[in-house]
Amino acid sequence: MTTHHATPEGTPQVTEILAQWVVSMKGRDIAPEVRREGLRTFVNWMGCAVGGASHETVDRALAAIDPFSGPRIATVIGRTEHLDAAHAALINGISSHVLDYDDTHLKTIIHPAGPVASALLALAEMRPMSGEDFLTALIIGIEVECRIGNSVYPNHYDRGWHITGTAGVFGAAAAVGKAIGLSRLQMQWAFGLAATQASNLREMFGTMTKSFHPGRAAQNGMMSALLAEAGFDSSLRAIEAPRGFACVLSDKQDYSEILDGLGSRWESALNSYKPFACGIVIHPAIDGCQQIRAEIGARVNDIASVALTTHPLVLELTGKRTPQTGLEGKFSVFHAAAAALLRGDGAPTAFTDELVTAPEIIALRDTISATSDPSCHEASVTIDITFRDGTTLRKHVERAIGSHDVPLTDAQIDAKFRTQSVLVIGQVATDALLAMCWKTPTLADVADVARASVLPS
Amino acid sequence: MTTHHATPEGTPQVTEILAQWVVSMKGRDIAPEVRREGLRTFVNWMGCAVGGASHETVDRALAAIDPFSGPRIATVIGRTEHLDAAHAALINGISSHVLDYDDTHLKTIIHPAGPVASALLALAEMRPMSGEDFLTALIIGIEVECRIGNSVYPNHYDRGWHITGTAGVFGAAAAVGKAIGLSRLQMQWAFGLAATQASNLREMFGTMTKSFHPGRAAQNGMMSALLAEAGFDSSLRAIEAPRGFACVLSDKQDYSEILDGLGSRWESALNSYKPFACGIVIHPAIDGCQQIRAEIGARVNDIASVALTTHPLVLELTGKRTPQTGLEGKFSVFHAAAAALLRGDGAPTAFTDELVTAPEIIALRDTISATSDPSCHEASVTIDITFRDGTTLRKHVERAIGSHDVPLTDAQIDAKFRTQSVLVIGQVATDALLAMCWKTPTLADVADVARASVLPS
Repeated sequence: MTTHHATPEGTPQVTEILAQWVVSMKGRDIAPEVRREGLRTFVNWMGCAVGGASHETVDRALAAIDPFSGPRIATVIGRTEHLDAAHAALINGISSHVLDYDDTHLKTIIHPAGPVASALLALAEMRPMSGEDFLTALIIGIEVECRIGNSVYPNHYDRGWHITGTAGVFGAAAAVGKAIGLSRLQMQWAFGLAATQASNLREMFGTMTKSFHPGRAAQNGMMSALLAEAGFDSSLRAIEAPRGFACVLSDKQDYSEILDGLGSRWESALNSYKPFACGIVIHPAIDGCQQIRAEIGARVNDIASVALTTHPLVLELTGKRTPQTGLEGKFSVFHAAAAALLRGDGAPTAFTDELVTAPEIIALRDTISATSDPSCHEASVTIDITFRDGTTLRKHVERAIGSHDVPLTDAQIDAKFRTQSVLVIGQVATDALLAMCWKTPTLADVADVARASVLPS
Repeated sequence: MTTHHATPEGTPQVTEILAQWVVSMKGRDIAPEVRREGLRTFVNWMGCAVGGASHETVDRALAAIDPFSGPRIATVIGRTEHLDAAHAALINGISSHVLDYDDTHLKTIIHPAGPVASALLALAEMRPMSGEDFLTALIIGIEVECRIGNSVYPNHYDRGWHITGTAGVFGAAAAVGKAIGLSRLQMQWAFGLAATQASNLREMFGTMTKSFHPGRAAQNGMMSALLAEAGFDSSLRAIEAPRGFACVLSDKQDYSEILDGLGSRWESALNSYKPFACGIVIHPAIDGCQQIRAEIGARVNDIASVALTTHPLVLELTGKRTPQTGLEGKFSVFHAAAAALLRGDGAPTAFTDELVTAPEIIALRDTISATSDPSCHEASVTIDITFRDGTTLRKHVERAIGSHDVPLTDAQIDAKFRTQSVLVIGQVATDALLAMCWKTPTLADVADVARASVLPS
């Protein structure tokens, strides 16, 4: 552990040190593999934002906020509307999270891109910036967000805070603050304004308000940086003060998680991308069932029964035997396995009301059993198939796709992007948008990506 | 204690019951004296909002948010600018709190009107309502705010939450939800959206961000109600759920404070109005010194020394001997007493940089001593004056003006209003505005008050 400036009481000057790091970090000093992961994060986020854009949660939020929009210079991703940049940050943050399909920092369960990318891309439509500068600010914002999350996790999350919102508002403030060139003092103020707006409760899970969280964190983080830029002052010790963020919202305050290895060890590079549109615990079962389908083809129609051997959390969290809706389907390993076997699907299309109630899915689903095995790794599963002719097949997945050990390849991120985006903006616009996303590092104006994300008129 | 519907675990359905009360309460069932106090609250708030409107805190916030304003249909009180209603709620909430001169619910130290009146009056400029309906919604919003505050105070405040913001967002949501006619279900959603935005840290005290709190609570509460109106759903048990507001943000949850005597016992009628623009502990000293000045006239120039005998909190909180700035002057009982004796002033004009450094004030200030007496009531003081000719004068204040036992009269609220408002919008506009404020119950369109509050162009 490195040493840092500390107060007389021994608490380091966390806010000041972090602010200084944000304003002084150079994009060229971020290692290529870290920048590459930042780009993958952005591509994955954009696919999710387009994919969620037609959800009724977004419709309703838009209806409420539309009469308050300022100059409509920013794109509502995946739609035809435009809004001021702050409201666009809100709506795009909602869209990117509403399908529960976005990125995950596995150590904290933060979904990092929602608050940060939503704020930064909307800002880029009012304050133009290059793709390079955008990626630098995005990576720095996510780094701040995940490190602040690490410093209070798990106690903070266990108390009931939705950490994507509470840490996210700092990440959005850092990214926007970096992009607009705040001084260290202004960045401290921005952290103060972010800290005092850090909220969002886990009680809201299962309602539209869950998706509101990354959106509002994006909007509030952006405005924190812009207020600071205008000279609106705030505490200089908002993270570590006795009545600051970490002490008030958590029983754990490990500031070494924020300060150690800044600029050399990158939490942002640990980001992961869900291959399937549901809780991570049933990903091994979906992965294994998709592999089986790829191997046996039409014989999926001859399956008599399926026996899953899984980590105990699978049945604890997703043991719903007879889901009735798409949302309930996300909490049924039986439905998820059936959809993967019969349709090869783990995307949002696997969790629609229609598919959950389709007779052939239900018929297969009801032949599936699951056994908890405490010795089974969270990223593993064993699947035993018995066919109608009595023959059997065993598939063991040692580490599922999307886990820490088997990250999505770029091609898999592409496939995930396409599956979502085509349904919302069509094939042609999807192809163009995806190609442009990967070219972000070379773009003179990153807002071109936002403008390419809309429904063709 | 009355009984209420309860969950199997014994926790009453606080959110549902409170929402039902908000939507079903009729203005005509609010007793005249409660309505009268609501009117006094509104008049006092408007004077503070005009008085604070020229503060640089407001200038800086306006500079940052102006580029994001939607249709400029709402008044920025005390100024020439206009904003969309949500941003007007934010700015007016800042203005009304920035001089630390607004109203106080003494049981919780909530400043009730800031979040609620700021939201409701701005809303009235986009959705017209009568003065009667405005007062009904204002009183109901403040009632919700103070009851929710009571349910978690003091533990919640002691942990570090600025309760004016955390409880205020519920009050603003309730007032706006009442005014726009939400259903019970929508009102529950609005409370969910408010709960998940309840934030604001005491760490921000002493910075501009403190005033941001009631403003943001007003804006967020308003948007919570408008999102709910558009069908944006949320938790139905946001206040009492295990991961809801009261459990996550407080160690104390006394739901009887929220539910008991709803509609018969009124917290809103306990609101109080500061006579002086500083912390309440030095009000007795200012009151006594003003009385002495009124009695002895020019002999204030013959004072040799002053000895105060005060409650111990006075020196603990306001014992600054040599304040250098107006803000520091608020934490100096010596300055405050000198300004009251020499100028008769306890308004914001008593706490300017100029007055704090004026030679004649400093000369008298340095003759003042203070002694803590644990037997002295918080609202009392004894002042012993010694004149240069050796004669003495004793003044004992049993209960200071503005305390629970000696509320400000309407005439004193008027004087407080005028002192602040004249400096910002001048005498003529002040006279017209003050007269209109008192006529609120008879106004067909309460937004006329907002429109009368501006700088004449």
